[in-house]
This record gives sequence, structure tokens and C-alpha cells, in this order.
Amino acid sequence: MKSFVKEFFLFRQEVLAEAIGTFTLVFAGTGAVMVNELSQGAVTHVGISFVFGAVVAALIYSIGHLSGAHFNPAVTLAFWTSGFFPRRRVLPYILAQSIGAIAASATLLISLGKVGNLGATLPLDNNWLQSFVLETILTFILMFVIFGSGLDRRAPIGFAGLAIGLTVGLEAMFMGPITGASMNPARSLGPALIGGIWQHHWVYWVAPILGAQLAVLIYSQLSNGFRDLRE
Amino acid sequence: MKSFVKEFFLFRQEVLAEAIGTFTLVFAGTGAVMVNELSQGAVTHVGISFVFGAVVAALIYSIGHLSGAHFNPAVTLAFWTSGFFPRRRVLPYILAQSIGAIAASATLLISLGKVGNLGATLPLDNNWLQSFVLETILTFILMFVIFGSGLDRRAPIGFAGLAIGLTVGLEAMFMGPITGASMNPARSLGPALIGGIWQHHWVYWVAPILGAQLAVLIYSQLSNGFRDLRE
Amino acid sequence: MKSFVKEFFLFRQEVLAEAIGTFTLVFAGTGAVMVNELSQGAVTHVGISFVFGAVVAALIYSIGHLSGAHFNPAVTLAFWTSGFFPRRRVLPYILAQSIGAIAASATLLISLGKVGNLGATLPLDNNWLQSFVLETILTFILMFVIFGSGLDRRAPIGFAGLAIGLTVGLEAMFMGPITGASMNPARSLGPALIGGIWQHHWVYWVAPILGAQLAVLIYSQLSNGFRDLRE
Amino acid sequence: MKSFVKEFFLFRQEVLAEAIGTFTLVFAGTGAVMVNELSQGAVTHVGISFVFGAVVAALIYSIGHLSGAHFNPAVTLAFWTSGFFPRRRVLPYILAQSIGAIAASATLLISLGKVGNLGATLPLDNNWLQSFVLETILTFILMFVIFGSGLDRRAPIGFAGLAIGLTVGLEAMFMGPITGASMNPARSLGPALIGGIWQHHWVYWVAPILGAQLAVLIYSQLSNGFRDLRE
Repeated sequence: MKSFVKEFFLFRQEVLAEAIGTFTLVFAGTGAVMVNELSQGAVTHVGISFVFGAVVAALIYSIGHLSGAHFNPAVTLAFWTSGFFPRRRVLPYILAQSIGAIAASATLLISLGKVGNLGATLPLDNNWLQSFVLETILTFILMFVIFGSGLDRRAPIGFAGLAIGLTVGLEAMFMGPITGASMNPARSLGPALIGGIWQHHWVYWVAPILGAQLAVLIYSQLSNGFRDLRE
Repeated sequence: MKSFVKEFFLFRQEVLAEAIGTFTLVFAGTGAVMVNELSQGAVTHVGISFVFGAVVAALIYSIGHLSGAHFNPAVTLAFWTSGFFPRRRVLPYILAQSIGAIAASATLLISLGKVGNLGATLPLDNNWLQSFVLETILTFILMFVIFGSGLDRRAPIGFAGLAIGLTVGLEAMFMGPITGASMNPARSLGPALIGGIWQHHWVYWVAPILGAQLAVLIYSQLSNGFRDLRE
Repeated sequence: MKSFVKEFFLFRQEVLAEAIGTFTLVFAGTGAVMVNELSQGAVTHVGISFVFGAVVAALIYSIGHLSGAHFNPAVTLAFWTSGFFPRRRVLPYILAQSIGAIAASATLLISLGKVGNLGATLPLDNNWLQSFVLETILTFILMFVIFGSGLDRRAPIGFAGLAIGLTVGLEAMFMGPITGASMNPARSLGPALIGGIWQHHWVYWVAPILGAQLAVLIYSQLSNGFRDLRE
Repeated sequence: MKSFVKEFFLFRQEVLAEAIGTFTLVFAGTGAVMVNELSQGAVTHVGISFVFGAVVAALIYSIGHLSGAHFNPAVTLAFWTSGFFPRRRVLPYILAQSIGAIAASATLLISLGKVGNLGATLPLDNNWLQSFVLETILTFILMFVIFGSGLDRRAPIGFAGLAIGLTVGLEAMFMGPITGASMNPARSLGPALIGGIWQHHWVYWVAPILGAQLAVLIYSQLSNGFRDLRE
């Protein structure tokens, strides 16, 4: 516990950057869901998906060099198990991401009121199994793209933000109506805690973590245990 | 046959990357068609086209350095006839692409049910000649952009993923309502096989292959038999 | 006063570039609002947001090397207080931005007539406090992205235009219906002055300036007083 | 005349590249207008604008190194008068662009039938003066972005295709409903000739040429007679 607290403050710049990044991601993304409700659908589902993808891209370009731009506990855990992130920073990062997300939902509740379920993710028709399977696949794809475009040195420099942002945007676009397209426990935690909407919440922790770990396994296979991507 | 099997396993990383890439392309793209149906049109045709373009761009940035990121038998064949891809890898690649696409359609059928024809491509009003001509032109344009932005060393580094993704997205946008904008036999095979929808299926093999070969001819003319682009 | 006038003419190329850039930003962005009105909503809110984001990205790539591509008094002030812009150029820049914006609104009034309030920004339901708080957060995010992607040398080269354009586009998308998503006093001044629409106009000066200054404080914290980003 | 014919064949690769590029631009862009008509508006105005912008970006990345990727007589003339393009190639380029555009409109007429006026540009409500003024400004902005992002060596390398594509896309988005947002005599010529739609056609030659020349004047001012951008 002591070392955890120490870590949190030692790396306060990285941790602050993660909190600000996740705040911005949730503020913009779930804010889009809420404003769409408030404006009788002016934002549209296409617009909401654009916001989720664009904010991720913009934040990677702005914060990537400060903290690695995870903004997502499932991503942080996958970076750790694949050997790219030290174990002692995992909990501080996840805490910072959760605080950022909760602060975003609180800010949206205060400024816009309780509309659109605060952008909470819920399985369509309470079909949690369907959402579990699909969220696992979605996060597998996301984490695979993160490894391929962001960590593999053979990929062209600088395009990871674009590739990852497009992935988040397209997954929100095509699976948002079914699962909410979370792929991110922190993004789901904010509206759940502030709005008190906990139905099937565990799905949005277990499935993304599982999917991201699956990507660790597969990308490891494709890169000789991650050796090739350090070339 | 023996050498074919040997090739398949020798290059198992490249082959696995092609299968995962084509799985993701078909899972996202035809998934968007199906979820649009399930959500009473929330995704919209614009959103579907965005998904097809964005997934291609994201995958090129993630898998380009692993397998070349073909995801398309017509592209693999054009790389072979233009001298950029060895003949002995052609069949393993096409097999991997087909397996990936079929797996994607099967996953979508299981998780979403049989809706939206599983995203199968069908000529509008059964006018196969119209779709044949237009798919040929569409794939010619796609393959031309692949040569120009992706293989020609005189093009700015790294932008091929963006250029090719935009091309797939814009062709889906403007010709999707007429031909389905396949440009890709594997992408059409997945829904056809899993959904049992075989009408005019040959069009989506012959026309893309023809169009891509046409691009080989023309780009060869423009680059002195592909010599200039190696500069 | 004398030195102000001298400065204005000494740096006439930079100042002219700022005026042209802000003219183009306001001409395109508020023009989109007006043409949407004229065309019974053909542009859509999604289209308007795309225009705002795209024009900022295109202008950064075209004018960044000429004047720094501020186009926004709140940005110019934040560059000054963070030590990246000389004090003596602040007023000439703000004047040029204001002139460009006013000229754009005048051109739109003449060519399209008085429709859509000339694209003026107004708080939804006259709730100025809500818009004040939200515009402050929006401009904080924008200025944070400008520092992170545009000034920090550790960020990948060339992607600032994309990141900043995406940020403007996404903020217009998700907060446009509530606050008008100005983030820019000059952008709000043009339609206000030419259309005589001054309700709550002060909000669009004070909140953006406050939000941008907040980003100066926070980014300074994250980069050891801006020292790290010069690395 | 003899030297003109000689030039046309001497530079047949560049000329062929311009013809293919302009064919693709008009085939996709005006094809989107026609398919939108055929599909009861499935493409939408937003989708049409995306197609115009995306095809320009993709073509610049594919053909920029072959011919300079003008695809537009107004651009070719502006490159000539600003000293970046030899006079003897101007007519061959314009001829190739016109042939490409006409071939595209003919292909669309044959394959889709005479719908949507073949995507011809017409001033809204026959107000040719309004369209003349606005097309002049639109093409000024486009050519300014081409100089700034594409020719100025101080701009980040490789982003010109993105910047110019975004500019075409955003101008189509916000002014398409008023003027047709041509900015390009060849793009307007194709549908006009094949569809026999010549009302106010001169506007789409004179205004773009005038606007592009205006950009030559202004950018020359900003760069000390184009000297600075060669730095």
C-alpha cells in the first residue's frame, strides 16, 4: 500500500495526464450521447461515434509522450502482461483513469442534468452474453491495433493516433447500438457510479480485460514473443 | 500440393495476420450492415461506409508490416502478376483471407442472428452486367491507389493507409447502393457461404480480379514497367 | 500606440496570414450554419461540425509556417502567457483575427442574406452560466491539445493539424447544440457585430480566455514549466 | 500546334496520369450525386461531400509524384502563372483533364442512366452572380491551401493530400447547396457536355480561374514572391 501511494505521487505527471485524458474522453464521448438526447437527435449516432474516435486520436497526439495515453484499464493491464509497462504503475494508472472518468460524469450531470442515462453502457435487451462476447472481440481488435500501429517499430511513425482513433470510432459506429461499444472499464464506470446504473456492469470490466489479454497472446504469436516489434 | 501445405505453415505468421485482418474487415464492415438493420437504420449508409474505410486504414497501419495487409484475393493476385509477391504464397494468402472472412460471417450469424442478408453483396435489381462493369472500375481505382500510394517509393511515407482507407470508404459510399461496393472476393464470400446467398456471386470474383489486373497494366505503363516506383 | 501600429505593419505578412486564416475559418464554419438553414437542413449538424474541424486542420497545414495559425484571441493570449509569443505582437494578432472574422460575416451577409443568425453563438435557453462553464472546459481541452500536439517537440511531427482539427470538430459536434461551441472570441465576434446579436456575447470572450489560461497552468505542471516540451 | 502535339506525347505518362485522376475524381464525385438520386437519398449531402474530399486526398497520394495531381484547369493555370509549371505543358494538361472528366460522365451515363443531371453544377435559383462570387472565394481558398500545404517547403511533409482533400470536402459540404461547389472547370465540363446542360456554364470556368489567380497574388505577397516557400 505504501509503495502504491508513493508510486502515485512519484509519477504524478504521468498519473495526472492519464486522469485528464480519461476525463476528456468520457466528457466528450458520453457528453455526445447526452447532448444528442437533449437536442432531439441532432448529434446522431454517426456523430457520437465520430466524437469517440476523434477524441481518442487527438488525445494520443497530445498525451502520448506524457503518459503513453492508455485512458483504459484493459489497455494498461495488457501493456503490463506483455512486458511494456511496469507492474508498480498499474494500479496508480487504473485509479487515475477511474477518477478522471468519474469526474467527467459528475461534471456532465451538474452541467447538463440527468439525461440519456449519462451515457452509460447497457447490453441491448439485457442480453449480457451477447454483449460479453462482442465486447471481448471489440477490445481484442482495439488492442491488436494498439500493438500493431502503436508499439511495433516497423509501423510508420506517428500514425498510431490515427489508426487507434479510427478503430474506436468504427467500433462505436457498428456495435454501439448493440453493446454500447465500451471496450473500456473506466469509460463505463463513470456514468455507472454517478448515475447509479449498475446493471450488467461487470460485463464492461471482464470482457474488455479478456479481449485485450487475447490480443496479447495473438500479437505475441505474430511477433515471436514481441521481439520482432522492437526491431 | 505438398509445397502448398508447406508454404502455408512456413509463413504461418503472415498467413495468420492475413486471416485476422480479413476477419476484422468483414466482421466490422458487414457487421455494420447487420447492426444498421437491427437498429432501424441508426448506423446509416454513411456510417457503414465509414466503417469499411476506417477498418481498412486501421488494419494497414497495424498489419502492413506483418503480411503486407492485402485482405483481398484480387489484390494478392495483382501483387503477384506485377512482380511484387511470390507465386508460391498466392494460394496460402487467398485461403487465409477466405477463412478469415467466413469466420467473421459465422461469428456475426451466431452473435446477431440472420439479419440484413449477413451483409452479402448483391447487384441492384439483379442487374449483374451493371454491377460487373462498375465493380471492375471500382477495383481498378482501388488497386491503382494501392500501387500509387503504397508501393511507389516516390509517394510520401506512411500515408498509404490513409489513402487506401479513404478509397474504400468513398467507393462504399457512392457505389454501395448499386453494387454493394465489394471490390473484394473474400469480403463477398463470407456472407455468401454462411448465409447461402449465391446469386451472381461470380461477379464479385471476376470483376475485382479483372479490375485489379487492369490497374497492373495501367500503372505499369505509367511507371516504365514498375521500374520508376522502386527509385 | 505608436509601437502597436509599427508592429502591425512590420509583421504585415504574419498579420495578413492571421486575417486570411480567421476569415476562412469563419466564412466556412458560420457559412455552413447559414447554408444549412437555406437548404432546409441538407448540411446537418454533423456536416457543420465537420466543416469547423476540417477548415482548422487545412489552415494549420497551410498557414502554420506563416503565422503560427492561431486564428483565435484566446490562443494568442495563451501563447503569450506561456512564453511562446512576444507581448508586442498580441494586439496586432487579435486585431487581425477580429478583422478577418468581421469581413467573413460581412461577406456572408452580402452573398447569402441574413439567415441563421449569421451563425452567431448563443447559449441554449439563455442559460449563460451553463455555456460559460462548458465553453471554459471546451477551450481548456482545445488549448491542452494545442500545447500537447503542436508545441511539445516530443509529439510526432506534423500531426498537430490533424489533432487540433479533430478537437475543434468533435467539440462542435457534441457541444454545438448547447453553447454553440465557439472556443474562439473572434469567431463569435464576426456574426455578433455584423448581425447586431450581442446577447451574452461577453461569455464567448471571457470563457475561452479563461479556459485557455487554465490549460497554460495545467500543461505547465505536466511539463516542468514548459521546459520538457522544448527537449 | 506542332509543339503542342509533341508535348502531349512526350509527356504521355504525366498526361495519362492527369486524365486518370480527373476521370476518377468526376466518376466518384458526380457518381455520388447520381447514386444519391437513384437510392432515394441514401448517400446524403454529407456523403457526397465526403466522396469529393476523400477522392482528392487519395488521388494526391497516388498520383502526386506522377503528374503533380492537378486534376483542375484552374490549378494548372495558377501553377503556371506562379512559375511552378512550364507554359508548354498547360494546354496538354487541361486537355487531359477535360478528356478524363468527359469520359467519366459518359461512363456514368451509360452505367447509371440520366439521373441527377449527371451531377452538373448549376447556380441555385439561377443566381449566377451569387455563384460567381462564391465560387471565386471557394477556389481562392482551395488554391491558397494548395500553395501553403503542398508547395511551401516549410509545411510538414506529406500532409498536403490530407489538407487539400479536407478543403475540397468542407467546401463541397458548406457551399454545395448554393453553387454546386465546383472550384474546377473540368469537373463542371464533364456533366455539362455529356448531359447537354450548359446554363451558366461559363461561371464554372471564369470564377475558379479568377479565384485561383487571386490566390497566386496573395500567396506571393505572403512569401516574398514565392521565394520563401523554396527555403
